[in-house]
Amino acid sequence: MKIYDWHTGPYPARVRIALAEKNLQAQVSFVSVDLWKGEHKKPEFLALNYSGTLPVLELDDGTLIAECTAITQYLDHLQGTPTLTGSTPREQGVIHMMSKRAELELLDAISTYFHHGTPGLGPEVELYQNAEWGFRQRDKAVRGMHYFDGVLRKQAFIAGDTFSMADITVIGGLIFAGLVDLQVPPECTALLAWHGRMLERSSVQNWQTL
Amino acid sequence: MKIYDWHTGPYPARVRIALAEKNLQAQVSFVSVDLWKGEHKKPEFLALNYSGTLPVLELDDGTLIAECTAITQYLDHLQGTPTLTGSTPREQGVIHMMSKRAELELLDAISTYFHHGTPGLGPEVELYQNAEWGFRQRDKAVRGMHYFDGVLRKQAFIAGDTFSMADITVIGGLIFAGLVDLQVPPECTALLAWHGRMLERSSVQNWQTL
Repeated sequence: MKIYDWHTGPYPARVRIALAEKNLQAQVSFVSVDLWKGEHKKPEFLALNYSGTLPVLELDDGTLIAECTAITQYLDHLQGTPTLTGSTPREQGVIHMMSKRAELELLDAISTYFHHGTPGLGPEVELYQNAEWGFRQRDKAVRGMHYFDGVLRKQAFIAGDTFSMADITVIGGLIFAGLVDLQVPPECTALLAWHGRMLERSSVQNWQTL
Repeated sequence: MKIYDWHTGPYPARVRIALAEKNLQAQVSFVSVDLWKGEHKKPEFLALNYSGTLPVLELDDGTLIAECTAITQYLDHLQGTPTLTGSTPREQGVIHMMSKRAELELLDAISTYFHHGTPGLGPEVELYQNAEWGFRQRDKAVRGMHYFDGVLRKQAFIAGDTFSMADITVIGGLIFAGLVDLQVPPECTALLAWHGRMLERSSVQNWQTL
């Protein structure tokens, strides 16, 4: 399998963490798509993923799978433990929901802030910016941090009592928050404590070096 | 099971269509949440779904599952055919990707246009609007229609050669497009022909009457 990504990207991080959790690193090779040169918006890449986002997984038969959650679901069913996307229908539904919520309320909001409320990838890549929208999304992400803090006051992981794809999505959000200097509010002590535990996982420590 | 939704909503439509495809209608009761009164943004509903969106599925044990794709995945594993979210890891990954793409490039874009580029649900519900962003999303949705037209020139359904959740997401997009008078461009003949075939399915004909 081949993965098109960029070694410091918060979205690519999610799939790299999933790969390491599933111990599948040795089965993929990485193809670099330089975000800072806007290679992900050029026709050659758009032919792989119409939405122009990283990462993309290419299977050996040529099938292309974009979107982190779709890639993670695919990898999760290839082999082994831990199960990242759930075993029972109930677990699967809750993990899917919480991962989507982590995108909407945290990771995607921070990404929109980066691309619209800051210089983003620079004037040659960011051809349209809507700063007001970007700042709204930044504020939404901070509210999202408070929401997930509340979740983690009641349970050990984002989607319940075991590590899952939903944790990885929030980790992606906090990686992106770090890149744009958006702090987790100090009163979010449960989120900060959970983040400390996440950073102890080798998958989360080492994703940039895969 | 209980479903919180609104009988004309394009997102609720997706779960209602999935229910009918799986022949599970008799197992749920519906609770009306009036979008036009902004009931989905009030504290009682936000306690069910932090994101303030419809629909939400409540299981008999009290578990809450929001997000159409998460609900559909749950329902799909309860029973029967057709399989809406795929059987093999490859099918699951591709359906998941295409459904997400249909959200990003069509349905969610039209929803943002509705809430920001039109009066939306009215001044008492739409407390913040960013019209420029709304119009950009409308234009993105029209490009999305051309993209899905291209997909359907090569295959019979959105995610391959069988009906799936990804078709339902595009149907949701075209339901919303109808509500905001956004026409499918006449040159998108494959998309229009596919839509005609979809409208023949009883699940797609009758979702408002469930």
